[in-house]
Order: sequence, then C-alpha cells, then structure tokens
Amino acid sequence: MFEKVLEEIKLRNPIVHCITNYVTVNDCANAILAVNGSPIMADDIHEVEEITTICNALVINIGTLNERTVASMIKAGKMANHLNHPVVLDPVGAGASKLRTNTAKKLLEEINFSVIRGNISEIKALAMNMTSTQGVDANINDIVTAENLNEVISFAKKFSQETGAVIAITGATDIVANQEKTYVITNGCAMMSRITGTGCMLSAILGATTAIGQNDLLETTAYTIAMMGYCGELADQRVRNDNSGTSSFRMHLIDALSTINYYQLKAGVKIELH
Amino acid sequence: MFEKVLEEIKLRNPIVHCITNYVTVNDCANAILAVNGSPIMADDIHEVEEITTICNALVINIGTLNERTVASMIKAGKMANHLNHPVVLDPVGAGASKLRTNTAKKLLEEINFSVIRGNISEIKALAMNMTSTQGVDANINDIVTAENLNEVISFAKKFSQETGAVIAITGATDIVANQEKTYVITNGCAMMSRITGTGCMLSAILGATTAIGQNDLLETTAYTIAMMGYCGELADQRVRNDNSGTSSFRMHLIDALSTINYYQLKAGVKIELH
Amino acid sequence: MFEKVLEEIKLRNPIVHCITNYVTVNDCANAILAVNGSPIMADDIHEVEEITTICNALVINIGTLNERTVASMIKAGKMANHLNHPVVLDPVGAGASKLRTNTAKKLLEEINFSVIRGNISEIKALAMNMTSTQGVDANINDIVTAENLNEVISFAKKFSQETGAVIAITGATDIVANQEKTYVITNGCAMMSRITGTGCMLSAILGATTAIGQNDLLETTAYTIAMMGYCGELADQRVRNDNSGTSSFRMHLIDALSTINYYQLKAGVKIELH
Repeated sequence: MFEKVLEEIKLRNPIVHCITNYVTVNDCANAILAVNGSPIMADDIHEVEEITTICNALVINIGTLNERTVASMIKAGKMANHLNHPVVLDPVGAGASKLRTNTAKKLLEEINFSVIRGNISEIKALAMNMTSTQGVDANINDIVTAENLNEVISFAKKFSQETGAVIAITGATDIVANQEKTYVITNGCAMMSRITGTGCMLSAILGATTAIGQNDLLETTAYTIAMMGYCGELADQRVRNDNSGTSSFRMHLIDALSTINYYQLKAGVKIELH
Repeated sequence: MFEKVLEEIKLRNPIVHCITNYVTVNDCANAILAVNGSPIMADDIHEVEEITTICNALVINIGTLNERTVASMIKAGKMANHLNHPVVLDPVGAGASKLRTNTAKKLLEEINFSVIRGNISEIKALAMNMTSTQGVDANINDIVTAENLNEVISFAKKFSQETGAVIAITGATDIVANQEKTYVITNGCAMMSRITGTGCMLSAILGATTAIGQNDLLETTAYTIAMMGYCGELADQRVRNDNSGTSSFRMHLIDALSTINYYQLKAGVKIELH
Repeated sequence: MFEKVLEEIKLRNPIVHCITNYVTVNDCANAILAVNGSPIMADDIHEVEEITTICNALVINIGTLNERTVASMIKAGKMANHLNHPVVLDPVGAGASKLRTNTAKKLLEEINFSVIRGNISEIKALAMNMTSTQGVDANINDIVTAENLNEVISFAKKFSQETGAVIAITGATDIVANQEKTYVITNGCAMMSRITGTGCMLSAILGATTAIGQNDLLETTAYTIAMMGYCGELADQRVRNDNSGTSSFRMHLIDALSTINYYQLKAGVKIELH
C-alpha cells in the first residue's frame, strides 16, 4: 500500500497547507518538499479558507501559537473538514501551559482530525489533562517501555475512539492506533531528539502522505513514521562515519527523506501489527 | 558592469531591510550575507521607517503576510521611495488567495518598485488577475516554453511599462525585462524547486545587488538571477558527486553564493539579450 | 568550574525559555540542544509565565520585536526574576531604531538581567543612547581595539554596576565583566559574521550554561563565549579544508558545539583575566 503512496506523491505533488510554529517551519517546508509534496504556509484569518481549498491536506501545529493564529487554525480546519481533506494535529507542548492544552482541546472540539501525532505527554495532556510536558519533550515517567506498552496501546485505542483520529504516539517506540488495530514501530535513533523539529517535520510529512493514502490512514501513518525513523537511522550512520554532529544529522535526515525509495524502506522498517 | 557590482558589494556591504515571511527568513539573511550584504529584518510599524533609513535597499516579500505586516510594508516602501533606495517586491503566492493578490496590488499602487520578481503565475496574478498559483509554484499551464517565450516577453515588457519596475519572471527559463530590453536566462536546475526559499533568497540578494547597481537595474537584476541559477548548477554537481539530497543542495547553494567570483560566473552564465 | 557546568548540563538538560526573533530561532533551538539543553520557544502573553515556571532560564532577544512580544518579554522576565532563574538579554539592533533602544531600556527597568550580551554598539546604545547600530552589527568606529580596550573594560564594569548584570561585549575581542573582574577572550574567526545568528545562538546557549552555573555567572559567561568562539575556529578549519562556504560553516559550528568536550575546550580557549 505505502509503495503506491510514495509513487503517487511523486506524480501528484500534494499541496500541504501548514499553520505551524516559527521555530521549525523551514524544516517542515523542506521535509514536505523532500518527500515530493508541495508546502504552503499561511496563517492569516482572511486567507486560510481559500488557501486550504487549493490544498490537499492541512497540518495544524500549535508550537508558538498565539491568539491570532488559533482563530485561523479553527477556520482552516473547518474548511478542510468540509472538503474532506486529511487534517493532522501536532499538539506541541500540550500540557506545558493551559493555553496550549486548552487550545488543543478546543481544536479537538471544533475540528475532526485524521491523525493526531505527539509524544506520550502531549497526547496524555489532550486526553486526560493529567500530565505536564517539559521542554516540549516526554516526561521521564511518561516513556513507553516494554512494561507499559499494552497500557499505552489501550489508551491510544480509546483516544482514537473518542476522537475518530488515528493516534500516533512517537518516541523511542512509536505506537500508531485506531479503534481496532495498532502498529508498533521501533525505527529511529537517539540523535533525533538532539535536533529541533523531528516531530514537527514528521507531522508535516504526514500531511503529504495522508493526502494520498487517505483511504488507509492507519497504515499510511504507520509507514510514514517508520520512514522518518529509518531515515533517522541512515542519517545517524552518516554522522558516525564522518564524526560530525547534530547539524550534519539534520541535513542527512532531510537528504535521506528526499532520496529514499520503497525498496530501501521495506528492508529497513521495523514495524509490527500488535 | 556586474563585475563592479560584485566588487563594490564586498567593499560597501550594503544593508538590506527585509520585511519577509517567517518560512525562509533565515535563508534570506544567510543568502544576503553570502553575497557580502548585511541583512536587517524588521517589520514593526513603529520602526520600519527608521530601519529603512539606515539601509541601502528594501525587500518586501508577502509570503505569510498578515494585517500587521502589510501596513509596515507600505510605510517602509514609501520611505524607501522617498530616499530613492531600490525596492524589490516578491509577490509570493499572489493568485493563491484574494488577500495575497489584493495585497500585492495595493503595494503596487502605494510603492514604486525597482524590481518585481516572481514565477509566471504570480506575475500574471498581479498583472491580470486571471490565474491561480499552486503551492507557491507555477501552474503547469503557466510554464515558459519555446512556444510562448515571445508572448511572455511581450507581457513582461508591458507590465514593466505599467509599473516602472524591472520585471523578473523566474522558472526553468528566466525572463528579465524593462520596457525596452529583455534578458533570457537559462541557468539553474530542477533541484532548485525541491527546496523552499530559492525564490525568496533570490529576491533578498537582489536587494544587495541593486543597492550597488541601481543605475543599471536591468543588467544587475539579470546577472543576479543568472548567478543564483549558476550557483544552483554548482550545488547540483556537488549533490550528484556525493549522492546526497535536498538539504545538502541547500547548503551547497549558499556555499556557492558565498564563494563565487566574477570570473567563474562569467564562464557559467547562460544569458542572452533578446 | 566550567568543566562541572558542561557535565551537569548533560545530566540535567536545563530547559531554556526563549522569547526570540523569527530570523534565527531555529538556530537558537538547535544550538541549545547541541550543548545538551532543552529549548522551549513561547511568546504568547497568556502562557509565558507558566512556561517560564517549568524552565530553568529565560533568554530575551529583541530582534524582530513587536508590541505583542514586548509585553510577553516583560511578563516572563518578572516571573523568571521572581523564581530566581537566570535571565539573559540580547539587545539585537539596539541603537538602530528608537523602538529597539527604548524597548531594551524598558526591559532593563522592569527586569533584573543576569547577563546582557551584545556587540559594542548595542551595549553602548543601552548604556548611553549615543551610538547607532548598522545592519545589526558593530559600527566601524565602535570596534574594540588594543587602543580602546581599557576604555571599553571600564565602560563595561560601570554598566555592570548600574544593571547588576554580567556585561558581555562580543566582537573580534570579547569582553566579559562584572563590577570587579573582567575576562578578555580572543577566540573566534571572521567567518562568524558571514552567517546570521552567531550572536543569537551564543545568547541562547548562555541560557543553558547559566542555568547550571548561576553561582558563578562571570566565569560561566566567559567560558561559554570562549567555547562558541573556539567552535567557530574548529568550523573555520573544516571550511578551509574542504573549500566550502558560509552555509557549511554554520553546520560545522553547531556540530562542534554538539561534540566538544572540556578537554578540547581547555586546550583551545584564549581567555585572560584582565
């Protein structure tokens, strides 16, 4: 299935409307382009509906949110829902402030999301309002381990049922669930958390892949996440070979996204239906 | 002529005031620095006139525009006109939303631009309000080809007459026209559209080069565009040699801008007076 | 002392709240991560107090300031003061516009800063309102030389007395002073001013290092600045070896920040107690 997604992205270059934070926006645009999508960033309330209309997917990322952009997110999201475009939510820092948690919850009330992707703290903050995120990263006691894997999967399934969205909880182990099925992915490397933007880029890319693979959201989401993780592994290899560092890693990661093909990916993904 | 422009930029480090989008702003600053200019980004309405006054050129880019910044663009543009500084317009996404098209048109009414640089869709949207841009990129039926080259040239000359600006329509083939003369440039490579920001960087660099070459705007604009395209070719070569990808391409492109000299450029430019 | 700072950053990953400009924000986040800190960028007035509360330091950078963010800076700064977190000020472009100079002065009135880092023009603009910055860079007549070194040191000490902050004046020669002692640092290279963001990244990193070395602010600040300069030298070496350019330099600089250890640093720093 994902083979066809990668092929069609190349042919159709889906346009992805991003309302996103100003920290990683350039990385997000370049990541979308790397996978053969076409990014358009627009957040003014007077144009977001029109922009979303000419696009094929919408990605909403609440990092560096402010009142002006929150209103635009809702307006764009409603239009994307109306047009049946996939809509991805990245609840960056949900749990770290009331503004972020409440904004994310308001977005969940107003918009039907296709995919919600965050770390375990952020997803828990959305679902339960009972955690706090630190430095836009998972709390130590919120890491997915062999011990709590089943608990997290059951939580993700329940949250998927509530929201109707595919729930993607990413970290060292990634969990991608709908109400019925769950994929567990173990691609990736520690270096991915030594640069900013790997999560944001992943959510941005999900806009491009779900625009094509909308009929099988769960599998498309799972393979996109595995692809990102595997590209991280390839980049990590490069950094080890040339003794470079975190900025080289960022470059090699986007390079890998821009060159990987399905056959390499197939050999590299570590993905299991749970 | 352009040899002298490159020499003087090194000596005088012209300061370029940019009111630009938050997607590619870092690339724009680094591109200006690469060609020995000095960037200053400032968009608050309470400082844009003062900032423009200490600068040598102004670049207005409407990507990720919002109401706050549009008012600043007009204020800065009027002051730059008053001071006889070159003013460059990059109408990113004109045609993609009424807000962008109308903003670009309003800017054209209020400000005298020295250079207007965009893809064919954007320039047509400004001139004729009869097209739509997709993903901040040219429509397929808006590509400049051997067949429609003369038509596009004649259009560019007419639009230059209306606006008083040098019109730069960039794509696989670039057209740079004033009322009387047209340069056709065929430098560049496909990879340039696989990263975000090549258009924005080009407009930003035009601020630095036209600050020096203001007396021959047409030739300065044409050679700046040829330089960008040729640096793209050099970067493309590097990417092919080391089998890297789009993020490496971005780095090699800015590297090339920062090291190219007139003699290399002279040997590489593909520029014709039409 | 700084050896312990570098060790503890790795163990504790201090969270650094940045209210910063959109030009170099991505570089700042990656620089903080490179030195094992954890960045969080947040500027909405409804969340800055909460965000600062879960952080270990605050960095305020006034590049691309606007009215909305200035109010957030003051609110966050007061809270960080209340919590006794280190607060770093980067007065980007102070002196270039009344808005920036007045904002920087207002911030000085409302907030107690731990470290103020800028070029000589910016620091003079804060202290004396008798200079102007160009292109967010030092005026030619504002360069620190062997001739005016003692004058600048005495000025820095006085300004430290007035503000209670460690004053860091960076350029070819860096001066780091409190009321009593001054370090003079001569690390760094010319290439550092050929990319945007070296100053901003340095201020951002100071958030991470002073969060750990708050008890010896002067030495922590001096060694952090020497580390940045030495990493610049290492990056410069790489660029010379592979004949690359300014964008490669940026990458090698962040790479060096992410890999340097205390023993390398000790061998490379050029730091003198004056």
